[in-house]
Amino acid sequence: MDILIKDVLLNDQRTDILISGNRIAKISPNIESSGCELINASGMAALPTFVNMHTHIPMTLFRGYGDDLPLQQWLNTKIWPNEKNLDEEIIYWGTKLGCLEMIKTGTTCFSDMYFFLPQEAQAVKDMGIRAVLGLSLFDGCNPDNLPNVKKELEQFEQTLALTDDHVQFAISPHAPYTVSGPTYQYLKAYANERNLLLHTHLAETQGEVDNTLRDFGLTPVQHLRKWKALDSRSTLAHCVYLSDDDIKILADTGATVTHNPNSNLKLGSGLNFRYADLVKAGVNVTLGTDGCSSSNNLDMREATKIASLVQKGRTLEPTVMPIGEALDMATVNGAKVLGIDMGRVTEGALADLILVNLKTPAFTPNHNTLSNWIYAADSSVVDTLICNGKVLMRGHHVDGEEEIMEQAIKMAKRLITV
Amino acid sequence: MDILIKDVLLNDQRTDILISGNRIAKISPNIESSGCELINASGMAALPTFVNMHTHIPMTLFRGYGDDLPLQQWLNTKIWPNEKNLDEEIIYWGTKLGCLEMIKTGTTCFSDMYFFLPQEAQAVKDMGIRAVLGLSLFDGCNPDNLPNVKKELEQFEQTLALTDDHVQFAISPHAPYTVSGPTYQYLKAYANERNLLLHTHLAETQGEVDNTLRDFGLTPVQHLRKWKALDSRSTLAHCVYLSDDDIKILADTGATVTHNPNSNLKLGSGLNFRYADLVKAGVNVTLGTDGCSSSNNLDMREATKIASLVQKGRTLEPTVMPIGEALDMATVNGAKVLGIDMGRVTEGALADLILVNLKTPAFTPNHNTLSNWIYAADSSVVDTLICNGKVLMRGHHVDGEEEIMEQAIKMAKRLITV
Repeated sequence: MDILIKDVLLNDQRTDILISGNRIAKISPNIESSGCELINASGMAALPTFVNMHTHIPMTLFRGYGDDLPLQQWLNTKIWPNEKNLDEEIIYWGTKLGCLEMIKTGTTCFSDMYFFLPQEAQAVKDMGIRAVLGLSLFDGCNPDNLPNVKKELEQFEQTLALTDDHVQFAISPHAPYTVSGPTYQYLKAYANERNLLLHTHLAETQGEVDNTLRDFGLTPVQHLRKWKALDSRSTLAHCVYLSDDDIKILADTGATVTHNPNSNLKLGSGLNFRYADLVKAGVNVTLGTDGCSSSNNLDMREATKIASLVQKGRTLEPTVMPIGEALDMATVNGAKVLGIDMGRVTEGALADLILVNLKTPAFTPNHNTLSNWIYAADSSVVDTLICNGKVLMRGHHVDGEEEIMEQAIKMAKRLITV
Repeated sequence: MDILIKDVLLNDQRTDILISGNRIAKISPNIESSGCELINASGMAALPTFVNMHTHIPMTLFRGYGDDLPLQQWLNTKIWPNEKNLDEEIIYWGTKLGCLEMIKTGTTCFSDMYFFLPQEAQAVKDMGIRAVLGLSLFDGCNPDNLPNVKKELEQFEQTLALTDDHVQFAISPHAPYTVSGPTYQYLKAYANERNLLLHTHLAETQGEVDNTLRDFGLTPVQHLRKWKALDSRSTLAHCVYLSDDDIKILADTGATVTHNPNSNLKLGSGLNFRYADLVKAGVNVTLGTDGCSSSNNLDMREATKIASLVQKGRTLEPTVMPIGEALDMATVNGAKVLGIDMGRVTEGALADLILVNLKTPAFTPNHNTLSNWIYAADSSVVDTLICNGKVLMRGHHVDGEEEIMEQAIKMAKRLITV
């Protein structure tokens, strides 16, 4: 059935929004309502849903485990030993928990990098949101291990058949310090043949830059360009440490950068992300939360606020990353590179949107809806979420959320044993 | 009637909490419940409420008005011309709106700096939380204007009679760039005679430091010490720019520093706040949000998270400001200097606490309750708030909140005319 959202605030105007199938069919005041499911939104504003461009979604089960530790100690004693316990059921419920949190905080699409993709895909479909699921790949920086990587790709061919409106797949070589140049080149060619995105970590810490300079005489960005891994179908998570030449390469190749402010701050990677320089050079900048093991939640509203605040603080310039740019970074800039027609509430676009409750302190007074949403509010204002034309949340409640949390608690106990 | 909170998670143990009058009378499993108001908290954790140590609470009405502008343009065109419209009714409802937002985000006490203190005081009492209300004072950096300041103090003597369990008062010379040294000295002596706190802005921007060095050959901290304005009854908001000698002076005098990370970032003041150095020197570090005109909300949970993340990011050290320290900064460190026995959920303390809903994604799984509260959750988990032994919120709803928001919207229209 079509959905008619009545009398909602959109771009500072009161209007109606008609959703037909999975698209926004019409935006206009006083649309005829016969035969539609009606949503009275007179106390609400419609806003685009977020696109979280860098996650490791099943790691939601690690939330808050091993906070405030030095990076290597955290990985060696808290994360890696327990990841050996992963299985299909843990992945399924961990992914569902992550999807639930995303729905409750206003996100309908994420770009992931992890393992057990068929189980991740099933969970995403069951929850009704969207994902691009990247297969994590490593060769231990030794191209002789390429045959092992190829074996994983054989299995991945079957996974590709699961592609639909909700789930796509990507190729995710982990990082230049775990994957050799030749394997990057092989994987990028593989991805391009199948029109898949390549999603990788890059230039996350000063140590990583120092090491690629030492080993190859190149920055991480230069290194990936050399191995032909950068083009408009590459998305690069972190990029905290970039030279002027790196930024030029990113602009020339058309690669997309994903900023993960919360993770970069919490793990002590640093706050050098050169947002204004990247935008000036014409690079597509997107936003992610990273996994809950490193930054504790999947709340894109909070990540957008922190990104904006830190850019203003580090440049001593309150005009950097104004609210419209910040919201684009968190929505449509990501959707664009994923090839999904969402991230704006406009006629013809896919019907992904949230309705936020304006009768809340954060929207009182409401001089500026976007500002109040990103800078003042939190998820408590998100009343309704629609993805692909389906209502997934009303009254901040998702059907079945209690079972998901119960199962996730069980899975976390099985996952975390040391 | 006494309140008995049954089966609540406190410091990782299930227990009961008995509140008698305005204090926590007993914490123990299986307390007898006869004759008490019962709260079944089996799905909840008890946590201390926040103490917001730097606000301009009626400015909540300016929320989101003039974002992303250069500082002077924002003050000259958006704030100061409209502040001329302030009146008693605007202050009353603006303060109530701020108190409502604080209750919904887990704060029961704030230290303010503004005008129209009797109306602020009435609103705080009507809302049932606590405040230390500082009278903003200026002499235009000209000690010849001291007689005008004294006239304001004459009126203030009557305001002091409004002191009670919920409201105290303080003396708030604005900043070294608006108040002369001799007037600071006069006001500090005045405050000390009456055992009032002195609450001032200090060392907020590099420009302020440059100017006091130029005009007096002293940093802002050295300047205030010279005029005898620093002792253990002084609270200093911002302190973004501190020299090693400044930190030593703060430690020697016992002054309290209030960090306002969101404001410092959003206004482009900078992220130089030297948290670890201050703590190492023994300075009492507390936390504030600043007014909603500069940082958009009064959410201390978010401010605590951002403080912790930025300190880790700026020092490249994930172990800086671990979660227990972060929470102390946002709770008991402030309560201590205000002389209010709150900020910890312990037997004998004042009964100020929140109950957070653990059956939420942010607390799933719950490896670490404090970490999940500060790093993962948001105000949507705050179910119940108790202040001074009275329940002010249940089910995230405050009685009368709809009227407060309606009145605040009217007041904002009257306040903001240019």
